[in-house]
Amino acid sequence: MKLYVGLVSGNTYKVRILMALLGIECPMVVLDFERREHKSPEFLRLNPRGEVPVLVDGDTVLWDSSACLLYLAERHGGAPWLPAAPGARAEVAQWMALAGGEIQFGLQLGRRGVVQGRWTLGDLERCQAMSRVALDAMEFRLAEHTWLVGDHPTLADIACFPYVETAPESKVPLEPYPGVRAWLAACRALPRWPGRAFTV
Amino acid sequence: MKLYVGLVSGNTYKVRILMALLGIECPMVVLDFERREHKSPEFLRLNPRGEVPVLVDGDTVLWDSSACLLYLAERHGGAPWLPAAPGARAEVAQWMALAGGEIQFGLQLGRRGVVQGRWTLGDLERCQAMSRVALDAMEFRLAEHTWLVGDHPTLADIACFPYVETAPESKVPLEPYPGVRAWLAACRALPRWPGRAFTV
Repeated sequence: MKLYVGLVSGNTYKVRILMALLGIECPMVVLDFERREHKSPEFLRLNPRGEVPVLVDGDTVLWDSSACLLYLAERHGGAPWLPAAPGARAEVAQWMALAGGEIQFGLQLGRRGVVQGRWTLGDLERCQAMSRVALDAMEFRLAEHTWLVGDHPTLADIACFPYVETAPESKVPLEPYPGVRAWLAACRALPRWPGRAFTV
Repeated sequence: MKLYVGLVSGNTYKVRILMALLGIECPMVVLDFERREHKSPEFLRLNPRGEVPVLVDGDTVLWDSSACLLYLAERHGGAPWLPAAPGARAEVAQWMALAGGEIQFGLQLGRRGVVQGRWTLGDLERCQAMSRVALDAMEFRLAEHTWLVGDHPTLADIACFPYVETAPESKVPLEPYPGVRAWLAACRALPRWPGRAFTV
């Protein structure tokens, strides 16, 4: 197995979190974003979307972080992170969709704009509005529950964590979201939960 | 079971496609978007994201179209639409992530902007650029394959279909994407594949 990563990629961080929780050791290939290695013809043949992470396991090539999480959960011992009942499984998928939707296009693109000065889709104000849709939905759940689905942490929590943790970097304060802040702390308190910064 | 829908919602259409393919009859509640019923306090208690579709089945409430598709596939006889092998399942999740990511925020928001004059996140040019990321990724696969995953249609095809079909309405021509156009035709040719317009 091999994981293509970016050092500052929150989507890579999602996969690294699950690998750390499961104790999976996996070789990593670090792409140099400044040299645009993630848009090189060689890499685009692996991932036409031109993003990290990409997970390669034999003939299986997966280029979306949610897909990587599901695969690791089903194939590499992460079953406790993905409930078996169809209703709960679908709830996990629902929060992963929020992670790839409003969180990605609000909080992540907003952070990229603020930190790097690159505004891919919306400007600061519009990214903030999209971010609040995501955080309102999360607070609605987390005001009265510890975890996004059921009584245990799942892939849903892992998928939503990275760009919610960095919300202040995208100029979205978390003060109005006490449930979300408690949830961030609960995630960080899980055994083996890794930090954001890493070296390979 | 009950489905909350919008008459012009492509995300609702995804769920309607699978229900039609599976022969599921389900009562529908049509929300009046012009009266902002999808943002009413009552509806936000059901779905804090404030969007359709929402599927209610007993105690299970799902407010994301991908989650609804997965649930129907696992719980209501749609197994052939979701492969059993972890690698293929993850590939389905990957394309559903594209459907909820670049397709939603490129093609869907672009269409809303062009048709309704409401630009939620990016302007026309930025939505077009995001749309091309999605279509390039799809063409990369569909230039040499009939379906997005494996040799059979799956939830991946259903999830990507609605806002790719309407690409011209978001001022994204499909001429440069022959594989995508052949795939649209293959989807439409499936027995019981429903049309976009419907009355309840």
